[in-house]
Amino acid sequence: MEISNLGEFKLIEHLTKSIQITQPSTIKSVGDDAAVLQFTNKHQVLVTTDILLEGIHFDLTYTPLKHLGYKAVAVNISDICAMNGTATQILVTIGVSKRFTVEQIEELYSGIYTACNQFSVDLVGGDTSASLTGLTISITCIGIAEKHKIVYRNGAKPNQLICATGDFGAAYMGLQLLEREKRIFISQGNTKNNDFQPDFARKEYILERQLKPQPRTDIIKILEKHNIIPTAMMDVSDGLSSELMHICKESNVGCRVYEKNIPIDYVTATQAEEFNMNLTTAAINGGEDYELLFTVPLELHEQIKKLAEENIRIIGHTTTPEEGMYLITRDNKEIALKAQGWNAFIDNNTQ
Amino acid sequence: MEISNLGEFKLIEHLTKSIQITQPSTIKSVGDDAAVLQFTNKHQVLVTTDILLEGIHFDLTYTPLKHLGYKAVAVNISDICAMNGTATQILVTIGVSKRFTVEQIEELYSGIYTACNQFSVDLVGGDTSASLTGLTISITCIGIAEKHKIVYRNGAKPNQLICATGDFGAAYMGLQLLEREKRIFISQGNTKNNDFQPDFARKEYILERQLKPQPRTDIIKILEKHNIIPTAMMDVSDGLSSELMHICKESNVGCRVYEKNIPIDYVTATQAEEFNMNLTTAAINGGEDYELLFTVPLELHEQIKKLAEENIRIIGHTTTPEEGMYLITRDNKEIALKAQGWNAFIDNNTQ
Repeated sequence: MEISNLGEFKLIEHLTKSIQITQPSTIKSVGDDAAVLQFTNKHQVLVTTDILLEGIHFDLTYTPLKHLGYKAVAVNISDICAMNGTATQILVTIGVSKRFTVEQIEELYSGIYTACNQFSVDLVGGDTSASLTGLTISITCIGIAEKHKIVYRNGAKPNQLICATGDFGAAYMGLQLLEREKRIFISQGNTKNNDFQPDFARKEYILERQLKPQPRTDIIKILEKHNIIPTAMMDVSDGLSSELMHICKESNVGCRVYEKNIPIDYVTATQAEEFNMNLTTAAINGGEDYELLFTVPLELHEQIKKLAEENIRIIGHTTTPEEGMYLITRDNKEIALKAQGWNAFIDNNTQ
Repeated sequence: MEISNLGEFKLIEHLTKSIQITQPSTIKSVGDDAAVLQFTNKHQVLVTTDILLEGIHFDLTYTPLKHLGYKAVAVNISDICAMNGTATQILVTIGVSKRFTVEQIEELYSGIYTACNQFSVDLVGGDTSASLTGLTISITCIGIAEKHKIVYRNGAKPNQLICATGDFGAAYMGLQLLEREKRIFISQGNTKNNDFQPDFARKEYILERQLKPQPRTDIIKILEKHNIIPTAMMDVSDGLSSELMHICKESNVGCRVYEKNIPIDYVTATQAEEFNMNLTTAAINGGEDYELLFTVPLELHEQIKKLAEENIRIIGHTTTPEEGMYLITRDNKEIALKAQGWNAFIDNNTQ
């Protein structure tokens, strides 16, 4: 069905009719000029926003709309996790061109609702508009945290432990794989009704990391359970190297991170080898990992080591700012970190 | 300067370096994974979002970027006014193609900051991205209101007064004028370095209504001063007729509004005559007035009448839902209201 058959109001009504509210702070959801929320004095309120633009952040050739909707919510929740907070509400704005059908927008929203349900986040508002070309998704996420538990980027001190969750480079290698299959698909002159089957066997992990990233809400709960409040924290969207440099600059510290300590999944490693790419470069510059990168006082060394089973690893330590920001390679060389992460304003190969 | 010379992080840094914080509820502004806000139990929090897309909501042929930035903020503040609240913070997200220079984005932000300063709203976050084509501006606005003072769309009862602020149709006639001058400009084959001068003499009012709409924060203060809490309220963005129908449907009432009572500025009237357009149609369907439309109990009749000097007018009254929604013309005919307001998904002449 064409969207123009419904019009903006009916489309919004159609997409939001089955909204379920789970957060006690949601007083009024979709349907008025603004959402109404009620927070207690106990919490401070966190607000973040991320936009995804077709052709820049995603390619619908290989991104299912349901995954796209899920990812758009997930990356915003990840920003709330990066503050050591809990996401509570989102507002979803889409700009959509005439080539999209109502059914396709339903697919997008089914992914949005899947993420909302999984992370107990209420959809409370947004905006829906036509666009001249392509699909635009802009999401604002609201969250809460107790004042003394909020973690900023600027709280790291010299001689603290640098920790990272999960593993790195997988989403980037997943993207490379999808891009290769797209090139093969195009080079074979296939467009529609083709029998081209991409070769994704045993690559599920890196594809899922690219198409369906998981915000580390589990880690926030683990830190809470163990009474650990990081001194600084970020989520890794633009690449481990770039985010490390952000924390160092904001906190006025230097760092040493160890190549051998950077967690990498074996599927990522295999794919890098297949593509003849440098694995460490992919892991530290690839981006879109949506893992958490944080610092804790040195005294927590033993306690953090025990959290290896929870996917928290010590990857290095902070230094005085004069000591610079370096990666220590396996053969003990010091390489200065560079922010080679993703920059949509410059043509580059990372996305 | 090209944006790629700076890159995303430096561009954000450049645009946000002179941010001033005025709201006590702003704890942490731009520069971390999320903004941090602190609200008291006394207030509920309002959140709204609006997206403006090039070619759909604005035409840069005749829209100065500074005005566009101002308008993008103003229309969001207007939504907070529509809840009887006070705007406190905004998050600004832009998607911008390579054809824009850093200087142009600075112009856009100078309009954004002008609105922020005028309405004491803090810019606390956002996102900046490249786009393949055109300019996208998505703004989220946060506001506060005491719980018992928040006004929803669904609180009107039969036999209440329908009130409107300011006047109607001016922004629409301003748009028609700009579109005409654009057509003349194009038909003369002028592109650059031309001596074409648009004929805007004595049309400043309708142009300003289109290019620099004013959210009615003044009306919210007047209502407060006179201890008036409307039973239902909306701001008029999609046209008076469309918004009247929203309030009626949400509140389950009917309405009678009187053509003779709909406030219209004489410049609007003159322009409609020049264009041979029906003035009332322009006033009730034109949209983008950003005036407030609200209902109050009948007992406030005398009190509201005195507020005519504050630009508040009684334009009709609510009825039982069975009595329908009608405009009463000057010659006493009843015409059923239609939502002919703006719909970006359907090709129409209203924008």
